[in-house]
Amino acid sequence: MKAIQQSYPAQFAHCYGCGVDNPHGLGLRSYVEGDEAVARHRPADWYSGGFPDAAYGGLVASLLDCHGAATASAFTALSRHGSMPEDGTLPRFVTGTLTVRYERPTPLGLELVLHGRLEALEGRKAVVRLALEADGVVCASGSMIAIELVGPS
Amino acid sequence: MKAIQQSYPAQFAHCYGCGVDNPHGLGLRSYVEGDEAVARHRPADWYSGGFPDAAYGGLVASLLDCHGAATASAFTALSRHGSMPEDGTLPRFVTGTLTVRYERPTPLGLELVLHGRLEALEGRKAVVRLALEADGVVCASGSMIAIELVGPS
Repeated sequence: MKAIQQSYPAQFAHCYGCGVDNPHGLGLRSYVEGDEAVARHRPADWYSGGFPDAAYGGLVASLLDCHGAATASAFTALSRHGSMPEDGTLPRFVTGTLTVRYERPTPLGLELVLHGRLEALEGRKAVVRLALEADGVVCASGSMIAIELVGPS
Repeated sequence: MKAIQQSYPAQFAHCYGCGVDNPHGLGLRSYVEGDEAVARHRPADWYSGGFPDAAYGGLVASLLDCHGAATASAFTALSRHGSMPEDGTLPRFVTGTLTVRYERPTPLGLELVLHGRLEALEGRKAVVRLALEADGVVCASGSMIAIELVGPS
């Protein structure tokens, strides 16, 4: 199955967090699974927070940010067309506002699972609910207002 | 002048964004300047967002996150003691909730200037206002609720 980010238009594929054309980055890949988008990522050991064994809060925000934009893209396309479009024609969203609530320390050394759900879509504005889990426990939750770069086609 | 992060307790100095004991990280350094904390950072070129010439939103969130925690630490110490404490005894805050509003794309290739102000302090909870500027223009603003790791001493 193709990741959502693999269907982004080529001119918007440079993201450090998830762009297929950024060889330095985190390489996050998000997938549609039923009515949500899911991504799995195991951070490198050096992405520690203040504590050596907890993940960096900025990394948590970064993963949620990329995953939220991917959720908005995929579920906007699905709501408009009923299926995922051809490669390179997925609507591309950028973040308007991101809120991250750190519920508990996110452990390092485990695979993190990200969940995203499109809650509302009004014109170019999407509202996405987000959560990040480690070992089945929610460590961070969030919400994003994402803005589509071009209007509905 | 010593950076705020250089006075963090050694056990909390592993942060990818700003820890003096994390050689892989961003190395953010924040300083008290009058009634605010200020940091300057020029991102590496590979920290692009979807566009090649715009900074990654996750990096913007990361910088604000570290700078907000530093602002909370320094101004909590100043409000309690009237001066910055000896090395390694600064109170250490972690992020409870971070909200970032992306006002406009943050350009790559420029020095970014971060501003933080402590707005409220109630026991272990600090509220910080944040802004990130490039070339004198605010590209992102934010707010943070930061939590002190140990109670007031």
